[in-house]
Amino acid sequence: MAALDQLISIKDLTPASVHEVLLGAKLFSKNIHSPLLSNQTIALLFFENSTRTKISFELAIKKLSGSSVYFSSSGSSMSKGETVLDTTQTIRAMGVNGFIVRHQTAGVPLSIKLSLNLPVINAGDGTHEHPTQALLDIFTLIEHFKDIKNKKILILGDTNQRVARSNIKLLKMLGAEVILCGPHTLINKNFLSLGVKIETDLDQIIGSVDAIMALRIQTERQNSMQIPNVNEFRKFWGVTASRLKSIKKDTVILHPGPTNWGVELDYEVSDDSRSLISKQVQNGLFVRMSVLSKIFNPNGFKDFLENKGKQL
Amino acid sequence: MAALDQLISIKDLTPASVHEVLLGAKLFSKNIHSPLLSNQTIALLFFENSTRTKISFELAIKKLSGSSVYFSSSGSSMSKGETVLDTTQTIRAMGVNGFIVRHQTAGVPLSIKLSLNLPVINAGDGTHEHPTQALLDIFTLIEHFKDIKNKKILILGDTNQRVARSNIKLLKMLGAEVILCGPHTLINKNFLSLGVKIETDLDQIIGSVDAIMALRIQTERQNSMQIPNVNEFRKFWGVTASRLKSIKKDTVILHPGPTNWGVELDYEVSDDSRSLISKQVQNGLFVRMSVLSKIFNPNGFKDFLENKGKQL
Amino acid sequence: MAALDQLISIKDLTPASVHEVLLGAKLFSKNIHSPLLSNQTIALLFFENSTRTKISFELAIKKLSGSSVYFSSSGSSMSKGETVLDTTQTIRAMGVNGFIVRHQTAGVPLSIKLSLNLPVINAGDGTHEHPTQALLDIFTLIEHFKDIKNKKILILGDTNQRVARSNIKLLKMLGAEVILCGPHTLINKNFLSLGVKIETDLDQIIGSVDAIMALRIQTERQNSMQIPNVNEFRKFWGVTASRLKSIKKDTVILHPGPTNWGVELDYEVSDDSRSLISKQVQNGLFVRMSVLSKIFNPNGFKDFLENKGKQL
Repeated sequence: MAALDQLISIKDLTPASVHEVLLGAKLFSKNIHSPLLSNQTIALLFFENSTRTKISFELAIKKLSGSSVYFSSSGSSMSKGETVLDTTQTIRAMGVNGFIVRHQTAGVPLSIKLSLNLPVINAGDGTHEHPTQALLDIFTLIEHFKDIKNKKILILGDTNQRVARSNIKLLKMLGAEVILCGPHTLINKNFLSLGVKIETDLDQIIGSVDAIMALRIQTERQNSMQIPNVNEFRKFWGVTASRLKSIKKDTVILHPGPTNWGVELDYEVSDDSRSLISKQVQNGLFVRMSVLSKIFNPNGFKDFLENKGKQL
Repeated sequence: MAALDQLISIKDLTPASVHEVLLGAKLFSKNIHSPLLSNQTIALLFFENSTRTKISFELAIKKLSGSSVYFSSSGSSMSKGETVLDTTQTIRAMGVNGFIVRHQTAGVPLSIKLSLNLPVINAGDGTHEHPTQALLDIFTLIEHFKDIKNKKILILGDTNQRVARSNIKLLKMLGAEVILCGPHTLINKNFLSLGVKIETDLDQIIGSVDAIMALRIQTERQNSMQIPNVNEFRKFWGVTASRLKSIKKDTVILHPGPTNWGVELDYEVSDDSRSLISKQVQNGLFVRMSVLSKIFNPNGFKDFLENKGKQL
Repeated sequence: MAALDQLISIKDLTPASVHEVLLGAKLFSKNIHSPLLSNQTIALLFFENSTRTKISFELAIKKLSGSSVYFSSSGSSMSKGETVLDTTQTIRAMGVNGFIVRHQTAGVPLSIKLSLNLPVINAGDGTHEHPTQALLDIFTLIEHFKDIKNKKILILGDTNQRVARSNIKLLKMLGAEVILCGPHTLINKNFLSLGVKIETDLDQIIGSVDAIMALRIQTERQNSMQIPNVNEFRKFWGVTASRLKSIKKDTVILHPGPTNWGVELDYEVSDDSRSLISKQVQNGLFVRMSVLSKIFNPNGFKDFLENKGKQL
């Protein structure tokens, strides 16, 4: 098993290490546990607000018998002008084993890794990547489809964001077909080089895809409105109640949350059996337990997979 | 023992279940413990600020070997427009065993319960109820008086709030006599239907009651001033140093805190042996340990009461 | 071993108790541990923001198997007008074993101690004291020099603050020579009575001292500018790249952090082998573990020193 001492981008993973992480997540989802992080203390450095990601990591660490310290930039010396690296070096010197970092600026987790040489997990950096989100999305898809090779995955809406980038890279690595659909202003054409297709007319393709990953319109990140208004967005790119009828019976719908109900998804989606949204949240815990184990206790994780894997 | 899977209102309790909770609290107060919440994770959802209630529940969970995750609406995706139910469903999907909810709006804990079907404890919702506060107040009274049947309990001041409603219901269930006293603007006449008496002249009755529950003037909740000013309030409805002399020797004084000293109570009360205020805080821990055990581990709690109860 | 039930000022310590704390810290630094705080719950009351001190104490408590509750005045009933003593009495009544207190006003930890009679550790009070910072500074110096008797220690810059006062007292107690250097406006002449020397020309003395403790310019505390500007400060009292050349080869440099890089210290200092800044942070953990053990489990700590001390 190749050692993994950072998960900053999907580029840090190979198909083999993805396989291990997904196998670990499957074991954890069956309630097969092990105190793989006992005696480890991991620092959560959240320079950007988060509910789900923070609580998900915290619970994952707890369930592995590890302990965490939480640092948020509000109420800290950052307001006295302390830099990110000073803060990080200080917390490192207190004896933590590694970092989970969320920051509004792309590249911060990598610069922390480069300067500190301790394991770093990226919990979202600007518009760059959010690799554990992609892993939990893919775990959810594989749990459903067994295999995602050649499956047609539609990434819908505001595709110019970190969740999209991480998902595109991981989906392509595993052989899926990826289609982006959304308003021109929210489509990142650079993703063409990763092998995606771009479509603008949702109704042309919605009936043929295997999975729809709707992404959040991040109104709080937009300096200027890149869409006319949310009703226009819904009309052209929302998964509306009426579009639900044109989707195949076995097409699944994902959303990383928090959903703007009535914009990306109509409320009807939440009651539709094809929605995997709450599965995604559940699986987030298992995937993060797996990533944490692989990074912070590689030998223990290897044994765990070998011994407990037989129980599956 | 009847199962209890929510404590949203005093209506969720019967005299028998109150008895069990109080017996459990008594055991915990004697330092008789048991790890009744091991392997349970309980989410504290505080949409409204709190010091005492939050720390009291956190410590109660810790002392029972459970673990908690804390969610506050500040610094969360709520600021991105996420709804209460979305937040709650997300945290539920992460595998928590139940919720402790405080919210500024009456009815939120119930709507969470109805939509999620996991145990919910109400830690205060708007002007509706705060049942664990009533349980700790009654535990404190019973610890002092052995029995509160037919005792005259005066609820004083701003009686139009959740602590009053929960206390009135619980006191009446246990056979106490309840008198409300305060300015007309702060007396909820609907409480008459619960069998309370209303008095406006404090000096007429203060000498005859067995307990005085002074409630906090919640200036932070008042849109318009419902009292002329705090000095006027103190003059007519405060437990002043001079009124302390007209109170019976065995009349006790309670306040849920935080007290506005010099308004509801003069400082002299804090040094008076008849004040049970700090007992209330202590007992809050024991009562919450008991409620948590009964809800989250009913069988373990039953055994605990049966086996350890003999030690009393 | 004399009991220690408060650490509010260096005056609470004797040379013998300092020796015990430093011996304990040395053991903890060698990874020799013991669950000396099991079953203890310690409240961290931070009325003033802090990153390092808070996390350092939290980790120290965890590593000794204790548990902590954290109270910060933001998001609490303090905003409803609750007083410090009310808050503290409430948390005390919940059954905590003691307090770690940081407050912007000198004297608050002492007043809490006097009114509650539970152990109190001062984690910084106004311009008064910050004793655990001085202990970790001295531990770092002794780790380096073995003995600091007659060593010349320069306290540089804004010496009119709590870290300076605690360090001066402790350094003098242990027989070191202390020199203050900085702008007139930031030198507290009262410290002359503690036996320090005052110098204003840094270049006259920098070549002869054994250690330089640069202190933070606390711009956030200054009502009016007491220095012309930070560039002027750096020119006269900063440890600049060029001054690094005039310092002796075995002179060490300390800073309690967070450093204003380019003001008190040039960036070159952080790469200089004579900088002990990151050692200070590390040692903060060990010294606080030692202080906590001595205060909250004196017998266990005594046995620990006697039995484990042989392993050194």
